[in-house]
Amino acid sequence: MDIRVTVWNEYRHERSHESVRAIYPQGIHNTLATALGEKGFATRTATLDETEHGLSEDVLANTDVLIWWGHMAHGEVRDEIVERVKKRVLDGMGLIVLHSGHFSKIFRSLMGTTCDLKWREANDHERIWVVAPGHPITEGLGEYIELEHEEMYGEHFDIPAPETLVFVSWFSGGEIFRSGCCYTRGRGKIFYFRPGHETIPTYHNPTIQKVIANAVRWAAPTEGAQRVFGNRPPLEPQGSK
Amino acid sequence: MDIRVTVWNEYRHERSHESVRAIYPQGIHNTLATALGEKGFATRTATLDETEHGLSEDVLANTDVLIWWGHMAHGEVRDEIVERVKKRVLDGMGLIVLHSGHFSKIFRSLMGTTCDLKWREANDHERIWVVAPGHPITEGLGEYIELEHEEMYGEHFDIPAPETLVFVSWFSGGEIFRSGCCYTRGRGKIFYFRPGHETIPTYHNPTIQKVIANAVRWAAPTEGAQRVFGNRPPLEPQGSK
Amino acid sequence: MDIRVTVWNEYRHERSHESVRAIYPQGIHNTLATALGEKGFATRTATLDETEHGLSEDVLANTDVLIWWGHMAHGEVRDEIVERVKKRVLDGMGLIVLHSGHFSKIFRSLMGTTCDLKWREANDHERIWVVAPGHPITEGLGEYIELEHEEMYGEHFDIPAPETLVFVSWFSGGEIFRSGCCYTRGRGKIFYFRPGHETIPTYHNPTIQKVIANAVRWAAPTEGAQRVFGNRPPLEPQGSK
Amino acid sequence: MDIRVTVWNEYRHERSHESVRAIYPQGIHNTLATALGEKGFATRTATLDETEHGLSEDVLANTDVLIWWGHMAHGEVRDEIVERVKKRVLDGMGLIVLHSGHFSKIFRSLMGTTCDLKWREANDHERIWVVAPGHPITEGLGEYIELEHEEMYGEHFDIPAPETLVFVSWFSGGEIFRSGCCYTRGRGKIFYFRPGHETIPTYHNPTIQKVIANAVRWAAPTEGAQRVFGNRPPLEPQGSK
Repeated sequence: MDIRVTVWNEYRHERSHESVRAIYPQGIHNTLATALGEKGFATRTATLDETEHGLSEDVLANTDVLIWWGHMAHGEVRDEIVERVKKRVLDGMGLIVLHSGHFSKIFRSLMGTTCDLKWREANDHERIWVVAPGHPITEGLGEYIELEHEEMYGEHFDIPAPETLVFVSWFSGGEIFRSGCCYTRGRGKIFYFRPGHETIPTYHNPTIQKVIANAVRWAAPTEGAQRVFGNRPPLEPQGSK
Repeated sequence: MDIRVTVWNEYRHERSHESVRAIYPQGIHNTLATALGEKGFATRTATLDETEHGLSEDVLANTDVLIWWGHMAHGEVRDEIVERVKKRVLDGMGLIVLHSGHFSKIFRSLMGTTCDLKWREANDHERIWVVAPGHPITEGLGEYIELEHEEMYGEHFDIPAPETLVFVSWFSGGEIFRSGCCYTRGRGKIFYFRPGHETIPTYHNPTIQKVIANAVRWAAPTEGAQRVFGNRPPLEPQGSK
Repeated sequence: MDIRVTVWNEYRHERSHESVRAIYPQGIHNTLATALGEKGFATRTATLDETEHGLSEDVLANTDVLIWWGHMAHGEVRDEIVERVKKRVLDGMGLIVLHSGHFSKIFRSLMGTTCDLKWREANDHERIWVVAPGHPITEGLGEYIELEHEEMYGEHFDIPAPETLVFVSWFSGGEIFRSGCCYTRGRGKIFYFRPGHETIPTYHNPTIQKVIANAVRWAAPTEGAQRVFGNRPPLEPQGSK
Repeated sequence: MDIRVTVWNEYRHERSHESVRAIYPQGIHNTLATALGEKGFATRTATLDETEHGLSEDVLANTDVLIWWGHMAHGEVRDEIVERVKKRVLDGMGLIVLHSGHFSKIFRSLMGTTCDLKWREANDHERIWVVAPGHPITEGLGEYIELEHEEMYGEHFDIPAPETLVFVSWFSGGEIFRSGCCYTRGRGKIFYFRPGHETIPTYHNPTIQKVIANAVRWAAPTEGAQRVFGNRPPLEPQGSK
């Protein structure tokens, strides 16, 4: 069965800023959903201003991997929806957090840290180096990804040390950044991927789309063992099996 | 300067249950504070029913390592105090979470998971094996710690994979448990240590006291680099230094 | 294309000990190769006493995942074959090391430690607990795997801390052991899996076969980025792209 | 008792190249030993061309932390001395590997990988960013260390993922590098620290000296639990204690 991907976007910048709309006329979510659909994923989209932010119990139950882009309105995401998403992640749904999503409630709640960082909107040149060759998220990549212009994000990035660090960015202005970070929380896999400022056409870049597609495949749920909790009688002595 | 330790205890079981009071007449907090004081730490205590749960800004500002025991009243810990503690941990204060503190708001908030587990009150025999020999938290220990009777905690323990796994428990009833788990969050070090059911005199055990003392030394703040965030101008080209 | 698996076995116990031959008449390698073949993998076998231990450059070049069982004759494996296998692992071939293979030259060379441990041949009852639910190596498993009789392996197991700890064993004699350990070395994935003493029919157990099959899928090479090394001119300033 | 540090240097470049001797007239080892001695460590030196490379059983038995710099003559280090050093590391001696020591036999043997990398001698500007604020190796540092000129080392650096990644370097020529990497092997702590090309006065830099001193304190042996191996009788049933 195709992996079912829901692309969530705050979808405010595109409606309020002409410069952003010029790049993403249908919103970042539709750009990504179209690109992923062409790669064979079953995609849908959801946005902040829909009912329940588009993330009903039913939508989440039918989502294998959720992609999250937000920036100016993190605070408007309702806490009960955040809890709903978190519960699904812990139960096995994959989560891919993009760029300014580092400050989203869902990401901060899963990380346990502030997720703060340094930043600069100055059209730095970015070079995203692979530091985990052979990792499935790097399929089809060379040694690095070139982005001629991007917003700079710099260390310190206040996250728990990634379980796997896949990418580190170099910026022409003098900074480095841990740009591709893998985590497991409960049964769910989480990938943070740095690039994607709303005023730059990064998500039209085929290499960036390839990374996101790779991450979707990596984060998709498995049939691995369930988590079992609660009070229980002894298993031993072994005659009790 | 001596390491300043604050031992926080919910301090409800000891007041409501004669069987617990018989073991910890002054409360778990005073048993631990006395033991740590004898080892040269500067100790104080704090409990749930004090003003601000005994954790004022001033107390936290003067605490190097906070020890946390709670069980029946996690829900009564006020969210703003949890946030205050979390902020201090991320800024460098050590945190040692004991036993049923796995379900405390502060631990779950820092972990990002449910922290759920299996359990059984049946006086299992527990053997806590060292799996990280040479780790400072194991100073002065042999291969394992024997506890003749303890509550069983079993997997799955829903935590992020520890940065360092120091102890794994064996229970006579047939379970294993990751009993000593190290984390870093922000500049703060966190150690979860499993044993210590309120109806068993575990915290009077000198070896358990030694582990907690070792953990205090390990978790104490360093003068390591600060976290710096925010908007900033480019550092490059290098002439700009 | 099917994943190509080579099952390597020392194949000495089965020929010298009637009790082992009774359990594995064609050798451990053929038991495993048959089981994996039935699951759809393209399997072959190789043994110590074949030319080049059955691991010619050609065989390795056509192997996606190598499974390794050895015990009494680790010292007879020639160093140049070990180096050949290691080179292939670093270049992306998966490696699954079983049971007494912990002391093989190839495993110790990839780990950098002694890989020593405790052991006892006393038909302990073993219960292998999942501590990484959702991990692909746990597909189709319950909370634990029961083995009525097995050789005991106990801590300390002198390995680098696993990148992912998947299983922890409980033994009726009182020990625990980190039984399922994932590593990455170069582009290659490595999985150590504990059970499988030669006098016990563990590799006929369908659940054990399932774990090994899961591990083969997990360890199979990806098309992830290559490792590139050596002297190189500057990439910057960005005009040089 | 003072921490006992042995600074090992290949000590060939300084004798064969006037340009190197101009920077380190007494050799890199004496520059570092003097700097560390001034900070209160008990230092001695050892070099390749001494008997047993200066690393007799007695010297190693009286060394808490060994610092290693080598480059042009890695192949001349005798295998039995490498094994001797490795045994001591696994037993608890700290090891700090500097710069071109990435290709030393001792480091490759402990890592299990090729430890290969990219490089360029072009006087790149290097900026070494702290990515683990609060880590003891960062004591007294700011956000980054500036080195006006250094040899470039670039990814991919073929090492196991560090247990703790402390530093990441930015180079003006366009590369990044994982420059400060912590490992545990057996009871021993290992720190790899990138800077220090022999034609550049990096080891006279007080900040670099501070990092190395911090690393010595971090890597010094503890009184933590020993590793115990071998055949053993059952511990259970618990009456057998």
